[in-house]
Amino acid sequence: MIKGLNHIAIAVPDLALAAKRYKDHLGAVVSAPMAQPEHGVNVVFVELDNAKIELLEPLGEDSPIAKFLERNPEGGIHHICLEVDNVDLASKKLSADGIRVLGGGEAKIGAHGKPVIFLHPKDFYSTLIELEQT
Amino acid sequence: MIKGLNHIAIAVPDLALAAKRYKDHLGAVVSAPMAQPEHGVNVVFVELDNAKIELLEPLGEDSPIAKFLERNPEGGIHHICLEVDNVDLASKKLSADGIRVLGGGEAKIGAHGKPVIFLHPKDFYSTLIELEQT
Repeated sequence: MIKGLNHIAIAVPDLALAAKRYKDHLGAVVSAPMAQPEHGVNVVFVELDNAKIELLEPLGEDSPIAKFLERNPEGGIHHICLEVDNVDLASKKLSADGIRVLGGGEAKIGAHGKPVIFLHPKDFYSTLIELEQT
Repeated sequence: MIKGLNHIAIAVPDLALAAKRYKDHLGAVVSAPMAQPEHGVNVVFVELDNAKIELLEPLGEDSPIAKFLERNPEGGIHHICLEVDNVDLASKKLSADGIRVLGGGEAKIGAHGKPVIFLHPKDFYSTLIELEQT
């Protein structure tokens, strides 16, 4: 079912500083910051040869990463995103397996404009896994 | 400097169960468990199209992930590994930049038989970054 690794998402308290740190010290190719108000984050893409790191900063009142940063004020890895052919089929199989699919198992349109689901981190060793349809 | 993402390492309390979980529920291609006594871990490789997830279980008394699992008994992402051309040059540049390179900045031979260094997680938003020479 899972195919490639799409990205690793890292929540940071200050996006501009984090982007500068990845660029200056690791020589990374980083995008300009992009606001994604419908997802409650500002994002910088760190372009690797085969995948991306997405640096995320909260945007707005209901940011999904605000609570994470309250618990982890210095930042941290928030989730990893793996690619699948069909998130609806994945969601049905996982739910039938007893894996908790967040949001009642319904796919939503993710930050890349594609359907995504998230799996409960307690079902995968404290790793929040996003499955994106590609 | 950084090129590709080599792997995401996830520490787990029970490697056989974790491998079965990735295989049965995510349809992942997983290797047989491999003991790496010189690195204090048993490893299962989850093969993705473009990278790997490495599931790690402690092996022996001085396992480098034992303390991590004491703090995170359900497991969690332990580190990410990025590829560079030359870890010695990377180590010198990072140290000159004021980034803390663990182990005094000296490269060691990592689990894949290649030179590696680790960067202090406090310098990268609580993400432990391994740089591997490829």
